[in-house]
Amino acid sequence: MTMQLNTTHIYREIHEQPAVISHFLQQEQGTARRLADIIRARGITHVVIAARGTSDNAARYAKYVLGAMNGLTVALATPSLFSIYKKPLRFGNALVLGISQSGKSPDIVAVLAEARKQEAVTAVITNIPSSNLAQQGDFVLSLHAGEEKAVAATKTYTSQLAAISLLSAALAESDAMLTALAQIPDCMTQTLSANPAIDRAAERYRYMRACVVIGRGYNYATAFELALKLKELTYTMVEPYSSADFMHGPLALVEPAFPAIVVAPSGVMLPEMQAFVRTLNERGAETIIISDDVETLELARTPLKLATAVPEWLSPLISIVPGQLFAMHLAHTRDYDVDAPRGIQKVTETR
Amino acid sequence: MTMQLNTTHIYREIHEQPAVISHFLQQEQGTARRLADIIRARGITHVVIAARGTSDNAARYAKYVLGAMNGLTVALATPSLFSIYKKPLRFGNALVLGISQSGKSPDIVAVLAEARKQEAVTAVITNIPSSNLAQQGDFVLSLHAGEEKAVAATKTYTSQLAAISLLSAALAESDAMLTALAQIPDCMTQTLSANPAIDRAAERYRYMRACVVIGRGYNYATAFELALKLKELTYTMVEPYSSADFMHGPLALVEPAFPAIVVAPSGVMLPEMQAFVRTLNERGAETIIISDDVETLELARTPLKLATAVPEWLSPLISIVPGQLFAMHLAHTRDYDVDAPRGIQKVTETR
Repeated sequence: MTMQLNTTHIYREIHEQPAVISHFLQQEQGTARRLADIIRARGITHVVIAARGTSDNAARYAKYVLGAMNGLTVALATPSLFSIYKKPLRFGNALVLGISQSGKSPDIVAVLAEARKQEAVTAVITNIPSSNLAQQGDFVLSLHAGEEKAVAATKTYTSQLAAISLLSAALAESDAMLTALAQIPDCMTQTLSANPAIDRAAERYRYMRACVVIGRGYNYATAFELALKLKELTYTMVEPYSSADFMHGPLALVEPAFPAIVVAPSGVMLPEMQAFVRTLNERGAETIIISDDVETLELARTPLKLATAVPEWLSPLISIVPGQLFAMHLAHTRDYDVDAPRGIQKVTETR
Repeated sequence: MTMQLNTTHIYREIHEQPAVISHFLQQEQGTARRLADIIRARGITHVVIAARGTSDNAARYAKYVLGAMNGLTVALATPSLFSIYKKPLRFGNALVLGISQSGKSPDIVAVLAEARKQEAVTAVITNIPSSNLAQQGDFVLSLHAGEEKAVAATKTYTSQLAAISLLSAALAESDAMLTALAQIPDCMTQTLSANPAIDRAAERYRYMRACVVIGRGYNYATAFELALKLKELTYTMVEPYSSADFMHGPLALVEPAFPAIVVAPSGVMLPEMQAFVRTLNERGAETIIISDDVETLELARTPLKLATAVPEWLSPLISIVPGQLFAMHLAHTRDYDVDAPRGIQKVTETR
C-alpha cells in the first residue's frame, strides 16, 4: 500500500518554493541593504559561517557567491572549537553569520555568542526570528517560509539560498542582480512542471544502493544538498563531490553501472562538467544529469531537464529542484515515509 | 595468487613514517620559525588554504590546530573561483597556504599566483621544492619524505600534518608543543606494531560494500583521510562525517549491521564520541573503533588499538596509522593491487 504523494508535507513544501521566495524577497530587502551598508562601512573582507546539515549546504553556496560576486573570503566555522574545546577563534574584523532553520542548535548559537562578545558584526538567517540564534544577530534575515513540517528541509533551503543571493546583490549594489533574482520564482515554477517525468525516471533506481553526486563551483552546494536529501529520504549511501576532488582519488570507485548524478546547468563551469561526464561514460558509469543544456542532457542515461537557463550564480536555486523531486519520488517508489524518515527528527541539537 | 604485502611500496612507505617525520622535524624548524615571525609581525589573523585530495585533509587538520592553538581563522579556498570563474578573492591580510605532495595541480598554483599578485604572504607545504607551486611560496616547508611510489599517499600525509603542527608550535612559541611533537615518531613506531592484529581484523570486511568514517574536532581530518584511503585502495563507498553533522540527517542511514569506523582517541572530544558510539550501537550498527582508551575500545565490534595516548592536538598523526594499515590489508584481502589502484594516477592535474 503506497501513500498518496500529493497529500504529503514534502510534496506541498517543494511546490510552495516559488511563493516562499517571492514573499521573502518582498520582506527582507531592507534588512539585506542595512547589513550590506555595515559590511562596506566597516571594510569587512572575510566572513565566518556557522551552520549544520542543510544550512551548511547553504553556507557552501555563500562561499562561492560572496567570493565571486563580492570578493569576500568565506570560512565555514568549526563549532566544536567553541562548544567542546572552549578555544574560540579570534574573529578580528569578520562578519559572523549563523544559518539555521530552527535557530536552536547549541553549537551554532555558541559561535554567534562568542562573536558578539568579541564585538564582531553578527547576522543570522533563520525561519524562526524568535529563536536563541536570532537573538545573537545584529541583523536577522527571516525566511518567512511558514512552518516546515516534513523532516527533510526543502523550502527553507532554497529560501536560505535566496537570502544569500539577496545579500550578495545588496553588497554589489547591483540592480541587474536584483532583477535576475526576482525572476527565480517563475523559473522555479517552470522547473516544477518536470514532476511527472521525474516520477517516471526515479523507478529505475528502486534498488540502487549507493551513488555519488557531482557539482562544482556554485553547484558544489547543490551536490551536497541533493546527497543529503537522498540520504535522509531514501537511505542510499550517497557522497557529494566536486568534480576536481573526485579526480584526486575517488575516481577509483567507478566501474560499469556505477551511478553518478551530475549537476551541470549552463554557465562557465559547463565545459568542465561535460568533460567530466565523458570521463565517467568512458568507464561505463550510469549518469543522471541535471541540466538545461540539450547537448549535455544527451550525454546522460537519465536526463533531468531544467526548464530554463538562469544566470549561473543563481542556478543553485533552480538546479536543486529536480533533485528534491527525484529524492522524494525515489523514496516513494521504495514505499518509505517521505515526511518522517526513520531515525531522525526535524530539529537536531548538537553541542 | 596474492601479492607478498611486505614487498609493496605502500607497506614500506607506511612503515617509513616515523623516520620521515623525525627527519622533517630536524630540517624545517628554521623555516617554520621564520614564517611564524612574519605572521606575528604582520598581525595576520586568517589563513586561506588551497589543496586537493589527501592534502585537503591536511588542510582540515590545519583548520582545527591553527584555530585552537593560535586563534587563527582558516578558510579552505575555492580554487575554481580563480581557475575557471576568473573571479579571485580579495585576500586582504591573509596568509595564503598551498599544500600539495607534487606541487603540480594548476588550480592550486593559480590560487597562490593570485595571492602573490595581491602581495599576500604565501607559504607552500610540498614534497617537491622545485615544483611550480613551491615557486609561488615566500616560504616553503619541504617534506623531505623521499619519493612516494604508491599512488595512495601515506607518508606525505603525516608529514604534512607534522608541518602544520610545527608551524602551530612556532606560532605559539611553545617549547612544550615542540617537545610533544618530537615524541610523535616513537608513538608512531609503537602504533605500527598493531600491523598483525589489523591484518586479522580486516578479513571480516572482505565483502563490505559501504561504510562511514566518523571523527570530530582534530580528528575530523582523520575521518576524511581514512575514507579517502578506503576509497582509493578498496573501492568501497565510504563517506566521512563529523559526528555532529551525522546527527543532522545522515543518521537515517543506520540499520542493523551498518558499518561505522569511529576515530576516538583520548582527549576533550572523547565523551562526545563515546555517546555517539552508544547511539550507533543501540541501532545495531557494527562499530570499528580507533582509540587508545580501553573503555572506548570495549564498545567496538572491532577495536583498532592505538599503542599510547598522545596530546589530542597531535592525535591525528597517530590515529590515521591503524586506518592506513586497515585500508591496505582490506585491499590485500580482496586481492587488489595496493600500489596502483585502478583508474587513478599518482599526480592529478585539475584546473
